Amino acid sequence: MGTMREAIKKVCITGGTHGNELTGVYLVHKFQANPALVRRDSFETLCMHTNVGAIKQCTRYVDKDLNRTFTLEALDDHTLTAYEDTLAKVINQRIGPKGSATPTVDLVIDLHTTTSDMGLSICVSTQDPFTWQAIAYAQEQIPELHVFRWNGDTEDASFVSSIPPHGITIEVGPIPQGVLRADMFFGTERVVQTILDYVDLYNQGKAKRYAEVAIYDHDTLIDYPRNNKGEITAMLHPSLQDNGYTKIEKGDPLFVTLEGIDVCYEGEDPRYVLFANEAAYYEKHFSMCLTEKKTIQL
Amino acid sequence: MGTMREAIKKVCITGGTHGNELTGVYLVHKFQANPALVRRDSFETLCMHTNVGAIKQCTRYVDKDLNRTFTLEALDDHTLTAYEDTLAKVINQRIGPKGSATPTVDLVIDLHTTTSDMGLSICVSTQDPFTWQAIAYAQEQIPELHVFRWNGDTEDASFVSSIPPHGITIEVGPIPQGVLRADMFFGTERVVQTILDYVDLYNQGKAKRYAEVAIYDHDTLIDYPRNNKGEITAMLHPSLQDNGYTKIEKGDPLFVTLEGIDVCYEGEDPRYVLFANEAAYYEKHFSMCLTEKKTIQL
Repeated sequence: MGTMREAIKKVCITGGTHGNELTGVYLVHKFQANPALVRRDSFETLCMHTNVGAIKQCTRYVDKDLNRTFTLEALDDHTLTAYEDTLAKVINQRIGPKGSATPTVDLVIDLHTTTSDMGLSICVSTQDPFTWQAIAYAQEQIPELHVFRWNGDTEDASFVSSIPPHGITIEVGPIPQGVLRADMFFGTERVVQTILDYVDLYNQGKAKRYAEVAIYDHDTLIDYPRNNKGEITAMLHPSLQDNGYTKIEKGDPLFVTLEGIDVCYEGEDPRYVLFANEAAYYEKHFSMCLTEKKTIQL
Repeated sequence: MGTMREAIKKVCITGGTHGNELTGVYLVHKFQANPALVRRDSFETLCMHTNVGAIKQCTRYVDKDLNRTFTLEALDDHTLTAYEDTLAKVINQRIGPKGSATPTVDLVIDLHTTTSDMGLSICVSTQDPFTWQAIAYAQEQIPELHVFRWNGDTEDASFVSSIPPHGITIEVGPIPQGVLRADMFFGTERVVQTILDYVDLYNQGKAKRYAEVAIYDHDTLIDYPRNNKGEITAMLHPSLQDNGYTKIEKGDPLFVTLEGIDVCYEGEDPRYVLFANEAAYYEKHFSMCLTEKKTIQL
């Protein structure tokens, strides 16, 4: 007999949280047209588009980033009237509500893409043990799958994946916004199917128990060098372009100015570069995420 | 003594005709900050941002594609009130007017990027002999430079490059929208400098006379397979992704459906694939441009 488990009864696959990330939009189309693909005996699967307004106009968002609007505070604040603030409340009612002891959905798998060379990756910002076991299983099944732990807002997470008790964000790249790539499309589908397989094994009491997982742990966000008008004065260095998860050490080039001069890393500690040159992060003022590579105990 | 020539007195380098194509936006920033870079003794160089509204919001356009608004008919139509319709008239006054015997600018070099694997390329839709000589020179100096001839609208061209008597559009890729890449940035700059060098040689009567140039000549635009709701049902085939200028023959795969089934080319004549998987062309309903490879006499 295993230990007591609470079964996962309903999984929700969400696409189009950023409306110009077409991989998730079209995977949801595919799964809605062929529900058998995501059906398992031990749980129900719902597939839905989240930011329907942004999908329609093929933009990241209409008024603001939907994937930063799911804090409990924002969900309770009815003075917020941006399109995404209202939409977040509707989505929260549909697949949450967040914090409920009896949420409609137990696990959300939110599908994203990036212009950065992130390969197949999972982004996670929860400490929930089930979610981490699912991730460890996926990494065992798909050795090239990278795991990025983002602790920036664990206190009150704002992602779609934070609505139900268990949540995973899949990030694949590099893909331009507004583009489908067959390799990334089928790669994302493979990660989704692997997680669904894990849920089914878990519900049947057949899931292996993992003791550890290899991750890239968020450390620092770095902006592009800019002038006093806020314009970028240096670009990602070619050595970091198309070269995700590269280790950098003091003196390694990070940027090259428009005039061709290298700008180097001055930190004392080696770091691994993730999310380099993601289009949507130019306006957020970061060019890359510096991380530590580690193995954590589960 | 050479034959009679009319000197090129003013060249205009334009960036941000599509506001999310950052290479041109930032090259114009660079040239404006360092005018000596684009100065030559025999002519003046002006550098300007074209779609300033779209640049500000980092979108392709505000209301409509600026690079389709420069027909003489549209420029004369004051009932057109979209942002780009008005802007086109202002730009036309500044660097034209189009069709004038004494235009303000003699040659425009308009800077673009694409999410497609176009490498370094020039798009041209004029029959102007000077423009073709400049292109032939650039191809001699930069052997990897491709030339795409677009005859879709020679009758009344709608591009920024159609305003003055001589006009060249530079297209580089693959680059996601909203992203700078150092390799493409410096590559584009190299093409610009090469064309400026040609203009200077021409003005001095030292330009070589070219007899022919190798081009990809526009033949057909192909849309993605779609369902009756207009949704894409197949993606660019992986064999054509990151593989610009590929030759296809009857039976070669063009697309793969979301379910993984190949969709093949049924044409009888071999063609070369350009502009495959350009993000901005999803809404224009084309997935690629089929071209003929040929050498034309100048």
